[in-house]
Amino acid sequence: MNELQKLRQKNLETIFHPQSVAIIGTNRVKGTVPHDILDNILKTDFNGVVYPVSPKEKSIKGIKAYKYVIDVPDDIDLAILVFPSPVCHLALEQCGQKGIKSVIIISAGFKEIGEKGLIREKQLVEIARKYDISFIGPNCLGVINTAPETNLNASFAREMPDKGSIGFLSQSGALCTAVLDYAIAKHIGFSKFISFGNKADISEIDLLYYLMDDEETKVILMYLEEVSDGKALMNAAQEVIEKSGKPILIIKSGRTEAGASAAASHTGSLTGKDEICDAAFEQAGIIRCDHIEEMFNKAIAFAYQPVPRSEKVAIITNAGGPGVLTTDAAISSGLQLAKFSEETTKILKRALPSTANINNPVDVIGDARADRYVAAIKAAFDDEDVDGVFVILTPQSMTDIDTIAEEITIIAEGQTKPIYTSFMGEKDVASGINILQKHRIPHYSLPESMCSSFHAVHHFNKNLRSKVHRVPALDNIQHDVAKKMMNKALSNGRAFISEVETIDLLKTYGLPVPEGKLAATVDEAVNIAGDIGYPVVMKVVSDQIIHKSDVKGVELNLTSAQEVRDAYQRIHDNISAVMPDATIDGVYVIRMITGCEEVILGIKRDPSFGPVLMFGLGGIYVEIFKDVSFGVAPLTQEVARNMIEQTRAYKILEGSRGRTSRDIETIVDALIRLGQMAMDFPQIDELDINPLFVMDQGKGSIIGDARMILKNSN
Amino acid sequence: MNELQKLRQKNLETIFHPQSVAIIGTNRVKGTVPHDILDNILKTDFNGVVYPVSPKEKSIKGIKAYKYVIDVPDDIDLAILVFPSPVCHLALEQCGQKGIKSVIIISAGFKEIGEKGLIREKQLVEIARKYDISFIGPNCLGVINTAPETNLNASFAREMPDKGSIGFLSQSGALCTAVLDYAIAKHIGFSKFISFGNKADISEIDLLYYLMDDEETKVILMYLEEVSDGKALMNAAQEVIEKSGKPILIIKSGRTEAGASAAASHTGSLTGKDEICDAAFEQAGIIRCDHIEEMFNKAIAFAYQPVPRSEKVAIITNAGGPGVLTTDAAISSGLQLAKFSEETTKILKRALPSTANINNPVDVIGDARADRYVAAIKAAFDDEDVDGVFVILTPQSMTDIDTIAEEITIIAEGQTKPIYTSFMGEKDVASGINILQKHRIPHYSLPESMCSSFHAVHHFNKNLRSKVHRVPALDNIQHDVAKKMMNKALSNGRAFISEVETIDLLKTYGLPVPEGKLAATVDEAVNIAGDIGYPVVMKVVSDQIIHKSDVKGVELNLTSAQEVRDAYQRIHDNISAVMPDATIDGVYVIRMITGCEEVILGIKRDPSFGPVLMFGLGGIYVEIFKDVSFGVAPLTQEVARNMIEQTRAYKILEGSRGRTSRDIETIVDALIRLGQMAMDFPQIDELDINPLFVMDQGKGSIIGDARMILKNSN
Repeated sequence: MNELQKLRQKNLETIFHPQSVAIIGTNRVKGTVPHDILDNILKTDFNGVVYPVSPKEKSIKGIKAYKYVIDVPDDIDLAILVFPSPVCHLALEQCGQKGIKSVIIISAGFKEIGEKGLIREKQLVEIARKYDISFIGPNCLGVINTAPETNLNASFAREMPDKGSIGFLSQSGALCTAVLDYAIAKHIGFSKFISFGNKADISEIDLLYYLMDDEETKVILMYLEEVSDGKALMNAAQEVIEKSGKPILIIKSGRTEAGASAAASHTGSLTGKDEICDAAFEQAGIIRCDHIEEMFNKAIAFAYQPVPRSEKVAIITNAGGPGVLTTDAAISSGLQLAKFSEETTKILKRALPSTANINNPVDVIGDARADRYVAAIKAAFDDEDVDGVFVILTPQSMTDIDTIAEEITIIAEGQTKPIYTSFMGEKDVASGINILQKHRIPHYSLPESMCSSFHAVHHFNKNLRSKVHRVPALDNIQHDVAKKMMNKALSNGRAFISEVETIDLLKTYGLPVPEGKLAATVDEAVNIAGDIGYPVVMKVVSDQIIHKSDVKGVELNLTSAQEVRDAYQRIHDNISAVMPDATIDGVYVIRMITGCEEVILGIKRDPSFGPVLMFGLGGIYVEIFKDVSFGVAPLTQEVARNMIEQTRAYKILEGSRGRTSRDIETIVDALIRLGQMAMDFPQIDELDINPLFVMDQGKGSIIGDARMILKNSN
Repeated sequence: MNELQKLRQKNLETIFHPQSVAIIGTNRVKGTVPHDILDNILKTDFNGVVYPVSPKEKSIKGIKAYKYVIDVPDDIDLAILVFPSPVCHLALEQCGQKGIKSVIIISAGFKEIGEKGLIREKQLVEIARKYDISFIGPNCLGVINTAPETNLNASFAREMPDKGSIGFLSQSGALCTAVLDYAIAKHIGFSKFISFGNKADISEIDLLYYLMDDEETKVILMYLEEVSDGKALMNAAQEVIEKSGKPILIIKSGRTEAGASAAASHTGSLTGKDEICDAAFEQAGIIRCDHIEEMFNKAIAFAYQPVPRSEKVAIITNAGGPGVLTTDAAISSGLQLAKFSEETTKILKRALPSTANINNPVDVIGDARADRYVAAIKAAFDDEDVDGVFVILTPQSMTDIDTIAEEITIIAEGQTKPIYTSFMGEKDVASGINILQKHRIPHYSLPESMCSSFHAVHHFNKNLRSKVHRVPALDNIQHDVAKKMMNKALSNGRAFISEVETIDLLKTYGLPVPEGKLAATVDEAVNIAGDIGYPVVMKVVSDQIIHKSDVKGVELNLTSAQEVRDAYQRIHDNISAVMPDATIDGVYVIRMITGCEEVILGIKRDPSFGPVLMFGLGGIYVEIFKDVSFGVAPLTQEVARNMIEQTRAYKILEGSRGRTSRDIETIVDALIRLGQMAMDFPQIDELDINPLFVMDQGKGSIIGDARMILKNSN
């Protein structure tokens, strides 16, 4: 963490726990933002002192107002700016003069309105740097801290939410109001609620670090519209998760925006930005959500209930149909139905009527009242094989809905296994659901949401225990040699780097390059072929020729000296025919590889996440099935392996139906090395290894072809 | 429709519109089913006369009770049985004696409790047949008809729903209560609400036909746990949809039950029952839903709003973030954003503040009140390119939620384009949502549901216009020859039918069989090869050999008489080595096909849907990517083509990246012919054509290999 970041952490502490707050630009007009901010702070019994600052008014809401913030006779911890944007910088300058370090800028009219606003925003940042100020905003809804010793609603939200353990961050202010309205109805509580707007100074990264150490916060939620520095976000998220164990759930909108990948190469054309964002979030341990409801469904599972030890659940229902639907949902979400012990079956048999289903899912039958539910839930909790209980209820005429809800809250108390509920319907079940929500028992209207939330918690915690974010140390890296090669290539001013040069570079990073040499004459070609052994492949090498096959510059499966001679001549004839002006540097002679699987590895650059690795099985799989995966460099062993395993084509490498398994470990190694190279040489804009020949397990891999595009350094 | 089905339609009319109802087995004990049924009928002001029948009571709720139904002095249209299951048949017998034809049997304790109950249920059916009675149930919740001239709540549901145009059918009684509770809260109205329970007599098929002609019903919903006769369900659904244009939405639970496909063959092992159910529903035009919420989200779109002409929508929002999320959801659901005309843009520019976004999605900005929403919605409706309007609202401090909701209901009145809404949040937006729901404007808490519902309506109506359920007449079918062959094969008592025989049979149905003949001697083999032209393939033919390649019984690419002779010998040597006891019938000599795509076609039998066709691209695609599709025989042109087009591998056949397109029409033809064969010969348990060689467009296809398994007729 650099000095500026440290400063922000210090100033954030004051933003959330101020003893004195000045509202600069407030007024007497109800229903306007400048008024409502002051009103909200007063309404929630803030524990410190509020100072209205208004050029026009002597007092507001009976409280003495000051013309300028420098007129306030006392020290001010936090200033909230609701001044019009054209004069905001004057107010901020005065804050600096007054010695205020913590500021929230609510006012809109900055970056979001274009160039003019951007200039204003930069002005604010300059002033902040001058006075060591940190600020949230501009263009935001404000900040809420529910901690009782502070109790601050420094926002123009309609209402103050309950206290709870969820920290919520949002780039969109408007979305915050929908979120608060949703959460209040469901009794979902927050520790901190922060609308960070244009994040001109304090960013989502600073806030993540703040919430990492915030004792009130157990779960972190975020709504993001742009990932400005994806790499920093990943690093922060990894650190927060590793150090605090707190889950981070993010909605990142703009899923369908066409990726603006400039590179026109084969692998490049398949890369949408959003797929990379998906991969990067997964890699960092971030749980990506599609919408608010999904985010809160998962958040309450994390916040309210113990972590499940396994994915084995018991389902208890008073209706068969919903029991089947929940079973479907559970299996589809990757959960399993627990298998009850004989003891449990015995208990259930005793407690339930003979028509009840005493296997999992347990059907306590439509006329069940609370006693049957209690007996079944207790029996399930006590069963060794059960690591979570799902309670389903339909409102039959005899169902004592509220009592059942209350009993559930009592049983859940002190349990080490989680319990989730789904009371199906809406009107009659509303009061029961309300009881559950008030007592922070997760409730879901859909079994699907219940099951996928359970899975999310289990998956996160399994990863938390197993994930190692350590990039392995690599041997056999000749960085200096590589650097010299790279400098030479760059000095030529070419963007496109051909096979031989690319392969030479890859060799310095310990990648499995083929046996082969450049032959300048036909005799050299024959000698090289003799040295490396037949059969060989020959390919033309020329700076002017990018697609060697298109000009018939490749000859395969040459098995004798004579065939090499003939092929050498054919290549030269072909090129002279179609590209008479091309300078031929020679012919590349390499060993021909057969009986292996072909995969593609690649490096590309994402504007937000930096160097990204790509993996896919060759040819038609990549084209038709879009069966590719991504990873952000540098790669850990685990991430590299996961990249391979998450493709559907993995089964082909793994070997199935009697086929042998391929040497997957050497692909993992190659991906990690490529990742390191991408980190070390930002000049590499794109690099494709296509194909990498992967041989049987233990027999290694060999690069079949490679090419590279360098960033135009002119 | 047979006589029994016609009788059921007649008796159903009385079940829904009785003038007099007897409740047989009712009592005075509040909170029990026998009492609540009577109570519910009385509470809702039923327009006819109710007669309590109870062996114990003289009167119930002040109404004179009769000991037996035969004691009632007046005619009875409908009897509702709530008698205990062991004596239910006695009551039904009395109904018959009394001349009652329409009955609802609420009582449980039948098929669902096992063998004993099944016997009781069969007894009921026998009595019904004897007296021309039709009955719903047993083991159901009952029936509701909201038509004002009847107003009958003959169920033990907690409440009577609103009148509306949705017909709901459910196999699960318990689920009904959850559905009613959900619907009542959302002001969703029903025309008919039917819990059909064990469907011992009247089935979901009868009810579908009834609702087809029911003028009150516009949309049909169904919850099903088992598809007993899938083919009949498909036929009924197709007829209902074609004749009435009413959409049918079905939840079929049990998605994850492992398919019980007995056949262990290659294609068979990939077939899960649920995939076939998916394909069958799609083929019949049924919209399959995963849960209640999805079903009602789609149902209200069908029931409340006009049909969109295209998938082009306008989004109007007061918050940027939700606008982006909705755009994401729209594109992901296959919708498009409409492109506004200059005129529309001009109108929006005039009506909205300068900071508003006047492009689609339109952002009327957080401080928008109803006037801005109205202006934007009207402009969108008036735009030529817009065929649907989505209104998104977040509860900002200035948002006049209820007024906006009211204005929407006014604008929507008489519109020919649909309008859907999403008021995000829960507490503050509740009253606005309530206004929308009361006026039957579709409201969705998630943009995803909104978009997928819009898509469902559009998709259904597009299909309604374009779908032709006519199975084409086929030429070149020698049914008599085929029948003889089949009889011969069956008379041998073998289950497994080898390549040559299978291909001979396929030939009689006009399938593209290869040029080839069975050679009994090496000289014959040479002669045949000479006749059909080199290169040829040779394969061993033996009843004992199922997997020819495994015993090295196949020789490819033979280009001369000598090669044929050598190969003939090798095949015989190989077989003698590994299977010395096998009787070799000869060697099959066929033309070798190259430069084509290989696909797999198959017939298999589903216990519920009957003969099913399977299509997939060969080898690894089927194995690794499970890229197969299904269709229920007989196939129309459209269904057969859709089977091919819905596989991802279709792109390979279609030709891409410079490859030529393959002869897809000949695959369509082959699928249709196979379908016909499967219909004509129920003895075919399984048939695989693997591979079918598909050549370039216009050049046809040829069967590469085929085999068949017949049903053991012993």
